[in-house]
Amino acid sequence: MADQDHVPDIRREERLGFDEAVFCLHKQTGQLQRIIEQALSARRSLLLTRLAAHQLEALPESQRARIDYHPLSLTGICGERQGPKTPPRIALVSAGTSDAAVAAEATRTLAYYGEACVRFQDVGVAGLWRLLERVEEIRRMPIVIAVAGMDAALPSVVAGLVPGLVVAVPVSTGYGVAAQGQAALNAALASCAPGLVVVNVDNGYGAACAALRAVRALDSTAGAADSSGGGVTG
Amino acid sequence: MADQDHVPDIRREERLGFDEAVFCLHKQTGQLQRIIEQALSARRSLLLTRLAAHQLEALPESQRARIDYHPLSLTGICGERQGPKTPPRIALVSAGTSDAAVAAEATRTLAYYGEACVRFQDVGVAGLWRLLERVEEIRRMPIVIAVAGMDAALPSVVAGLVPGLVVAVPVSTGYGVAAQGQAALNAALASCAPGLVVVNVDNGYGAACAALRAVRALDSTAGAADSSGGGVTG
Amino acid sequence: MADQDHVPDIRREERLGFDEAVFCLHKQTGQLQRIIEQALSARRSLLLTRLAAHQLEALPESQRARIDYHPLSLTGICGERQGPKTPPRIALVSAGTSDAAVAAEATRTLAYYGEACVRFQDVGVAGLWRLLERVEEIRRMPIVIAVAGMDAALPSVVAGLVPGLVVAVPVSTGYGVAAQGQAALNAALASCAPGLVVVNVDNGYGAACAALRAVRALDSTAGAADSSGGGVTG
Amino acid sequence: MADQDHVPDIRREERLGFDEAVFCLHKQTGQLQRIIEQALSARRSLLLTRLAAHQLEALPESQRARIDYHPLSLTGICGERQGPKTPPRIALVSAGTSDAAVAAEATRTLAYYGEACVRFQDVGVAGLWRLLERVEEIRRMPIVIAVAGMDAALPSVVAGLVPGLVVAVPVSTGYGVAAQGQAALNAALASCAPGLVVVNVDNGYGAACAALRAVRALDSTAGAADSSGGGVTG
Amino acid sequence: MADQDHVPDIRREERLGFDEAVFCLHKQTGQLQRIIEQALSARRSLLLTRLAAHQLEALPESQRARIDYHPLSLTGICGERQGPKTPPRIALVSAGTSDAAVAAEATRTLAYYGEACVRFQDVGVAGLWRLLERVEEIRRMPIVIAVAGMDAALPSVVAGLVPGLVVAVPVSTGYGVAAQGQAALNAALASCAPGLVVVNVDNGYGAACAALRAVRALDSTAGAADSSGGGVTG
Amino acid sequence: MADQDHVPDIRREERLGFDEAVFCLHKQTGQLQRIIEQALSARRSLLLTRLAAHQLEALPESQRARIDYHPLSLTGICGERQGPKTPPRIALVSAGTSDAAVAAEATRTLAYYGEACVRFQDVGVAGLWRLLERVEEIRRMPIVIAVAGMDAALPSVVAGLVPGLVVAVPVSTGYGVAAQGQAALNAALASCAPGLVVVNVDNGYGAACAALRAVRALDSTAGAADSSGGGVTG
Amino acid sequence: MADQDHVPDIRREERLGFDEAVFCLHKQTGQLQRIIEQALSARRSLLLTRLAAHQLEALPESQRARIDYHPLSLTGICGERQGPKTPPRIALVSAGTSDAAVAAEATRTLAYYGEACVRFQDVGVAGLWRLLERVEEIRRMPIVIAVAGMDAALPSVVAGLVPGLVVAVPVSTGYGVAAQGQAALNAALASCAPGLVVVNVDNGYGAACAALRAVRALDSTAGAADSSGGGVTG
Amino acid sequence: MADQDHVPDIRREERLGFDEAVFCLHKQTGQLQRIIEQALSARRSLLLTRLAAHQLEALPESQRARIDYHPLSLTGICGERQGPKTPPRIALVSAGTSDAAVAAEATRTLAYYGEACVRFQDVGVAGLWRLLERVEEIRRMPIVIAVAGMDAALPSVVAGLVPGLVVAVPVSTGYGVAAQGQAALNAALASCAPGLVVVNVDNGYGAACAALRAVRALDSTAGAADSSGGGVTG
Repeated sequence: MADQDHVPDIRREERLGFDEAVFCLHKQTGQLQRIIEQALSARRSLLLTRLAAHQLEALPESQRARIDYHPLSLTGICGERQGPKTPPRIALVSAGTSDAAVAAEATRTLAYYGEACVRFQDVGVAGLWRLLERVEEIRRMPIVIAVAGMDAALPSVVAGLVPGLVVAVPVSTGYGVAAQGQAALNAALASCAPGLVVVNVDNGYGAACAALRAVRALDSTAGAADSSGGGVTG
Repeated sequence: MADQDHVPDIRREERLGFDEAVFCLHKQTGQLQRIIEQALSARRSLLLTRLAAHQLEALPESQRARIDYHPLSLTGICGERQGPKTPPRIALVSAGTSDAAVAAEATRTLAYYGEACVRFQDVGVAGLWRLLERVEEIRRMPIVIAVAGMDAALPSVVAGLVPGLVVAVPVSTGYGVAAQGQAALNAALASCAPGLVVVNVDNGYGAACAALRAVRALDSTAGAADSSGGGVTG
Repeated sequence: MADQDHVPDIRREERLGFDEAVFCLHKQTGQLQRIIEQALSARRSLLLTRLAAHQLEALPESQRARIDYHPLSLTGICGERQGPKTPPRIALVSAGTSDAAVAAEATRTLAYYGEACVRFQDVGVAGLWRLLERVEEIRRMPIVIAVAGMDAALPSVVAGLVPGLVVAVPVSTGYGVAAQGQAALNAALASCAPGLVVVNVDNGYGAACAALRAVRALDSTAGAADSSGGGVTG
Repeated sequence: MADQDHVPDIRREERLGFDEAVFCLHKQTGQLQRIIEQALSARRSLLLTRLAAHQLEALPESQRARIDYHPLSLTGICGERQGPKTPPRIALVSAGTSDAAVAAEATRTLAYYGEACVRFQDVGVAGLWRLLERVEEIRRMPIVIAVAGMDAALPSVVAGLVPGLVVAVPVSTGYGVAAQGQAALNAALASCAPGLVVVNVDNGYGAACAALRAVRALDSTAGAADSSGGGVTG
Repeated sequence: MADQDHVPDIRREERLGFDEAVFCLHKQTGQLQRIIEQALSARRSLLLTRLAAHQLEALPESQRARIDYHPLSLTGICGERQGPKTPPRIALVSAGTSDAAVAAEATRTLAYYGEACVRFQDVGVAGLWRLLERVEEIRRMPIVIAVAGMDAALPSVVAGLVPGLVVAVPVSTGYGVAAQGQAALNAALASCAPGLVVVNVDNGYGAACAALRAVRALDSTAGAADSSGGGVTG
Repeated sequence: MADQDHVPDIRREERLGFDEAVFCLHKQTGQLQRIIEQALSARRSLLLTRLAAHQLEALPESQRARIDYHPLSLTGICGERQGPKTPPRIALVSAGTSDAAVAAEATRTLAYYGEACVRFQDVGVAGLWRLLERVEEIRRMPIVIAVAGMDAALPSVVAGLVPGLVVAVPVSTGYGVAAQGQAALNAALASCAPGLVVVNVDNGYGAACAALRAVRALDSTAGAADSSGGGVTG
Repeated sequence: MADQDHVPDIRREERLGFDEAVFCLHKQTGQLQRIIEQALSARRSLLLTRLAAHQLEALPESQRARIDYHPLSLTGICGERQGPKTPPRIALVSAGTSDAAVAAEATRTLAYYGEACVRFQDVGVAGLWRLLERVEEIRRMPIVIAVAGMDAALPSVVAGLVPGLVVAVPVSTGYGVAAQGQAALNAALASCAPGLVVVNVDNGYGAACAALRAVRALDSTAGAADSSGGGVTG
Repeated sequence: MADQDHVPDIRREERLGFDEAVFCLHKQTGQLQRIIEQALSARRSLLLTRLAAHQLEALPESQRARIDYHPLSLTGICGERQGPKTPPRIALVSAGTSDAAVAAEATRTLAYYGEACVRFQDVGVAGLWRLLERVEEIRRMPIVIAVAGMDAALPSVVAGLVPGLVVAVPVSTGYGVAAQGQAALNAALASCAPGLVVVNVDNGYGAACAALRAVRALDSTAGAADSSGGGVTG
């Protein structure tokens, strides 16, 4: 069996505006090592998601030294990153402490691609005053990522209060009927708040990519308006 | 096959404090007719739930004339009822117009057993101001029934705002992941609000019975306090 | 039981930028009639979704005459609508003829709120050349709604090819494991394409509202860029 | 990423009559440590639920010494507690030895909030005489918590025998179709006994909070009766 | 396409001790007609199950006249039947009026194969006294069929009280989580009562066949004991 | 919390003909120890099921010495057992090597209660000749337990070939759609073979108890025939 | 909204070797009419699947006259078809009369594409002798389609007996756990018989297409062997 | 309990054309050891699937030395294997690095039975150009195995592009709604591409066996064409 088992999607940045991340959950050490080596040789930077601590430990020291690892979010970043160029346009709202890991995956992904976000933590609806105190700040953002587990009432309530694009990330916290995030997912999809969109359970990375797609559109529009011109090119 | 297929639980009132209702959903005309006849002969009053209009139509005119039928709630009542003896102690909160039938089943059941309730309609969380305007009124009630479909965020939000016993009734409105009320049910059960209790989807009757169990306990306690005495006897 | 069972969310436009639509699926004739009357008296326009032909027929002639009904999409519109003010910024891509009703719900919703969209019909991946022929046109749009049933491979493939925000609408076509859209929904949520966001099965209305949230953000950004100024206000 | 990731719901006691508990299941050591520190500094007492032994071990010795830990129920309590002020008004009925942990979570929660309960253990319906021998004692309590796994026939049978408010707690014991408590949950929700209410699988804490809501209502009613006055204030 | 689409399992009686029944649910008129014709020509008697009234109506008059149809159980019987040769050895216990159709399918199947049973109707556990009053009679039967919907607590309670073989038939009554009998099925399978066996939802026919298998074994044993001899031959 | 958490169902033998077994899966060491101590003091024998090796190891040496442990079946037996008094009347048929543990649980349970059985191993239908070679032997038994995982075709095929009572035990072997035995369970319940009865996934104990119920009925019948008299007493 | 809503995959025959069929289940009359018109104008022949009788009736007489409709299989064929050019290489095995419609969909699809098949009807495993009598005939075919509902034991047994490619088609017959074919599907996928492949529930069309893919490969191979040459070109 | 718990299906090769493999997932060391011993004594070669490293380690050194173990695919092979006799006729296409283990199980199985295949790795549809670059090569193969997790769009897209028999293997990669491969499985079964066939999740072995069945049919056909004769004998 040949070792050439990874064909990086090197044209993704050109097509989509952001390069391919590496989802490490089911990968073996040898596979990860070859992928990282490829990127380092090509001087491409690399975002690694769902990189467990034991997977990191199994990599050769020379590779580990090149990876900026963040244990809560299970993300690793190789190579250069630029700081955010614009003021934040994304609010990241989360319901409780248990949602921190998923929220952090989103934050790290945004940071890797050069976008900042404003965090609103622990504003779950069981103590509604915490959210109501901050809703005016959240309203100012054109894009909102709302992270919540259990019954995921937060994204519904947020999407009923603010006009921006709201991306719900159901979280696999809870037990019993929470069913590894299935109840949260279904609640978000069945939400009575109009226009709430949803990503897979625990998919902080996906929510960040959706937000990136939206902010790139904003950038194009702003650019187009500035130059009094043409179509959105993505 | 003998016709004697119904054995009414005539000792239920003595045991539980309220008599047996008749759940008509899967019953045939002949079965319903015999049950009603039994009650009329014994001069027992009778609550019929899930009584479809076509089932009512199929009954003999003499029985139909004795039934006070309410089409939205699909309930029928035979025989005497007393008006409520006390001021209402139960709030009945519902999210939207589509929940009206289930809420009405609860209201009619309470009325049959001599309890009034205060209705708070169309206060779903997609327009949160509607609920917040009325929350002080709801807070005054020791028992709250909260009826909601789709993502059922309402019971969670209510139970986070009021101190009384909150009984959630998930409703089978919605489509797709709403799954005939399954998403609403799971959201209510996985709620982050402490002490929210839940009944089966669309079970307005069950929520009313739970509320009855609680108000009977209040009555006993009040009676006991008045007479400076004894234990709660239910 | 009082008739006052509908409390319209009259502040929604101010909060979210678009007014409340009426979801008719589980509503009774009397309820619909009161809601429409309220809107007509207040001279508010009204979008009705999931309005079945038999529900329309049951309304009084005077109301029916005021409703612009579209049978395929099951939508009705009362009152004035302005034509779209800007060139279309939304692509609406669908996989097959069977998806037409859901796509039409999205189109009508966008039209009600003054947004045009460009349709790309019958470009399902079983005959991939149909999509590839048109991908450059789709790439030009900052927002893409992708409607597909069965295995919903289309949204994944589209989101791998274009940089805009892609909102997947799973459709309840198919049979067996298609399970009323559940397979399509899960495929869209589990998609390997980064940043694909999803709404409930058959929820053309929700996808349109998400697109509206995104285009309003674009408008704000463009306006802000024009006036060389401040924050996005939604 | 800032450390300020926990915003305690400090107004909960005022709103609901009992303060916020900390659900530890998905929390990391650092998060727990900060939450406990906050409470200790503010001299607030604290109920910790689902606190695994290894989570406790990971806390600093100074915090561990302040926590009254109960391994079976996985609960920890920091700070003062008053003994129960009234005779017990809550019966806690459980089906078998395997339900002991969930029952203990309920008991500890009640104790934290100053309520006693009477335990009826191992009265599952496979040996019905055990329950029938004790049913008169259970009948005397206005509130009953019924804990059972597998097919959860116990709550149904209890709710058919006693007039008080019966809160079912399905338990995740069993295997195969028991499905981590799903069969027990559905049996309790589909119960033929009128007015049985249900909380999430294994949610002893939630059942205790529901019981607290009910006993606080009893207290208010009794107080109101004593003083010949006013409304229930919760 | 040839018409010869039915190959009756004519050797079944010899193998299993009872002949093949015809499950009519998905069959078309032409198919049923050919099957009945085949049986009439061969002078075989025939049990038809799940024969809807409209299916019966669609048969030619000459066939209809030969069928003894029982509408509640949806069963039809062609040809001779002998009366039961022995006193009943099967108890048929059911929870409520709604279970009557399934119980009747079992009764009719037993009757077709020459076995009587004793009926115990409406003994559901919500009013436990009704069952306890009759438990001694049920105990006398070596085989018990227990029919119940919703939470199916009845089979568990029965199997905890009597020593015979207990076959549970879950019934698709109820709504919401009852899920067309799934909750009842899972409760019966997860029962804490030892040795309870279960058939498919609504499968009165299957329960009767299981009972037949058991009584034929009893007959063989009794025969063997009488003749002081050999092995059980089925 | 009191230690008296186990109330043995000491009247079970009298009621059902076999005493209570102890299901150890979710029990803690202390609980097991008290249960065993109770039995030893009372000189009752005891069947322990789902007793994991680590649970056994955690018991005090004095108790371990009294337990006859069988690791494959995870069963332990304390106290005296009589050998089987009669020739075997139960066939135990299993599909593959992976079903051995479940089959052994059934065998050990039967042995504890004094019944022998004849084993037919590895006769799964993928190599049908293995079953067909032995079908005549199986036919001679009045009771057959059929153990199979994956698609559980074996119980269907067996029940189509033999006249005895066939109890299917679905096994949680397999992966993917096998879903911990759910596919096997549903296949057994949906079987086209008439009168197949089913127990929970992996429930070798339950199948053995069902077989015991049936053989006790055979014994009564035989006894009754011998003495030319009376009713079946179980 | 433009009417141009159907883009036929006219290159499919060239790519796959068979042209596009029209799945009519969710299509409206107008849509079907336009699709048929397009085909008739282009003189393309057309296979219509899941064409309900009422859909056919709604078409204009001129179109109906051109459609060879087969009610049991719900298929319609427009235009020329050639008879099969080769002896049959496909066996179509089905379990019972209720599977006839699905089997007929497969047969008609094969016929449309010029392939014959040999039918083996009513050979379900409940009466195994029916299958064993014909197994030698089935063994001679390189491709076998096995159609079965309920527990779908037939495909497993067949795949254990014959060496050809076996395609299982689960059928949505049955009730309760049969769950519209889900149990049959899972049994087929979890089969212990090696190399059994599966299509969606009731998908006779898909099984026929799979068989076509296989026979086209046989044709290529045979052609290649005849001409002593090259690679398979599909 | 006797040790003779394995009855190898020694006639399988003669019936099906390939011998029985040993599925090791749930087997214990003793069981595996006896099976291997049997094969070694009989000088039969043996394919072991799902053989975990720890299971291998537990075998006696003498057996381990005879097993060619491949850790990624968890397969072991004892005994002789012949190299492939023909040029490859099977394409093995996989979506991403995470699918490598399942693909390897297929490859090793094919190798064991003397068939080669051509690998196309990492051609998932998120970067569609990778597949389109290689589609002409894939088209040349009469049989294609397509391995993919998450949303499994790859098999659909492949089956829409190539004429050969396409066998989808859903993979249990992913998280949340991916649900251990259930979303991938359902997407493959609900595929809009005609004639796609599917095996169980992660069943690389089964896909290889299906491919073997197909290539053996090709061999027979080629042989038959060569010799201008007879029927396919498998």
